[in-house]
Amino acid sequence: MRLALGIRYDGRAYDGWQSQLSGRTVQDKLEAALAQLAGQPIRTLCAGRTDAGVHGLTQVVHFDTEVQRAPFSWVRGTNRYLPDDIAVQWAQEVPASFHCRASAQSRRYLYVLSQSPVRPSLDTGKVGWSIHPLDGDAMRAGAQYLLGTHDFSSFRASACQALSPVKDMRHIEILRLGAGERCRWYFRFEADAFLHHMIRNIMGCLVRIGQGNESPDWMQNVLDARSRLVAAPTYSAAGLYFLGPQYGAHWGLPAEVTSGSSWDSYDGLP
Amino acid sequence: MRLALGIRYDGRAYDGWQSQLSGRTVQDKLEAALAQLAGQPIRTLCAGRTDAGVHGLTQVVHFDTEVQRAPFSWVRGTNRYLPDDIAVQWAQEVPASFHCRASAQSRRYLYVLSQSPVRPSLDTGKVGWSIHPLDGDAMRAGAQYLLGTHDFSSFRASACQALSPVKDMRHIEILRLGAGERCRWYFRFEADAFLHHMIRNIMGCLVRIGQGNESPDWMQNVLDARSRLVAAPTYSAAGLYFLGPQYGAHWGLPAEVTSGSSWDSYDGLP
Repeated sequence: MRLALGIRYDGRAYDGWQSQLSGRTVQDKLEAALAQLAGQPIRTLCAGRTDAGVHGLTQVVHFDTEVQRAPFSWVRGTNRYLPDDIAVQWAQEVPASFHCRASAQSRRYLYVLSQSPVRPSLDTGKVGWSIHPLDGDAMRAGAQYLLGTHDFSSFRASACQALSPVKDMRHIEILRLGAGERCRWYFRFEADAFLHHMIRNIMGCLVRIGQGNESPDWMQNVLDARSRLVAAPTYSAAGLYFLGPQYGAHWGLPAEVTSGSSWDSYDGLP
Repeated sequence: MRLALGIRYDGRAYDGWQSQLSGRTVQDKLEAALAQLAGQPIRTLCAGRTDAGVHGLTQVVHFDTEVQRAPFSWVRGTNRYLPDDIAVQWAQEVPASFHCRASAQSRRYLYVLSQSPVRPSLDTGKVGWSIHPLDGDAMRAGAQYLLGTHDFSSFRASACQALSPVKDMRHIEILRLGAGERCRWYFRFEADAFLHHMIRNIMGCLVRIGQGNESPDWMQNVLDARSRLVAAPTYSAAGLYFLGPQYGAHWGLPAEVTSGSSWDSYDGLP
């Protein structure tokens, strides 16, 4: 039997998603909790590995098991053994042909940025920060150059393991909440897949444009260069949330991980 | 010279606002940072002491000092010495007749509640939790009984040091964000002043009504009893935010602590 789970976590305390010898990763905590519940080792695959400090709203994993339990028992039982900053949101039986990574049609990320003369405090580690006011129209104009299928090598970390730097950026939306000098910015991204550090590197460039240090068409130069050297420094992991993968409706998974779902359907966002 | 400061903090790591021998309070951290900056001890008074685990959006303090610095230097300089979950938002010189506690015309609190079959994870310690769906209309009907001037002894902790249990509740608003089984509730409270644990005790009663375990007019019975024994248990501190005191406009303080300001003017809320 193949099971898919939706996982939510605060990434601050963890060395990212992927299992490491330290044991301080979200995958390590999840697999330890699943093993306690199932009474046997369980290895999971995930839809999108997140870096240290990056948060997950709906990470999706799958695994195969012969252990028989009602779906909500997997949720409640696993959560009993998880730290209080990680929780399984739902569990669902899926056909053996479902693969959380290969079946995903796209992935969505959110970056939350606090614009304020004062550093974060109440939400430290949960938002990025710009001390300077940002120009939304300039950032939106710069973001337009990234839409569509491009070689994103300029935004790729050297450690990236992706087979190809060519990705299809399908959606970028930049929203402002609050009208004053102090406000929040929400950056929404959807692509077929993302390279390592790709959004944090794009964020560095968007903020540089938003602060007026580059014009919007500089983004085209960065993209064309296909070199990490021309882009801005990698922006903080603190404001980055993996909203989740998107799957075809025929899998019957929850709305927030079904292709074409509303961006406003995510509950529990900061 | 008298200075007023606005302070924001995540209360999770602290034993509440008020200074203790442990040194693990927000006041201890603030006064240590102010002393480092000023090169002399500084003692502060606050507008509203918060309990362990309660957060502050705009706590206001005042103190007298002969140290001369530009207001924003007090902000930036103090923040350099504060832990990353506490930050001074603004500093302003005020007349010696200003007193952060005595001059406050009212106080505002927010309670954020996650309604979900799954416990919090991404926002553990920052929201309260109801596993059961809540009936907003029933809670609003129950809250009506609390509006106006009443003896709130039924909602008062035994350790409360207030001179009188009679308070004037001026505003309660209950908002729902999200339409599904999983959603967030925002409870807004404004009163001239609050008793110790008053909002957490009211929250316990409102949730009991919202879950259908009591009818709205039970709130009148609780109020009439003037006894802590009849009310529901104290609700979790996790979802409680001190939005701040409200002062007369003639003090010229920032909008969010000026009487009659919009409830939507608070930036940085969860």
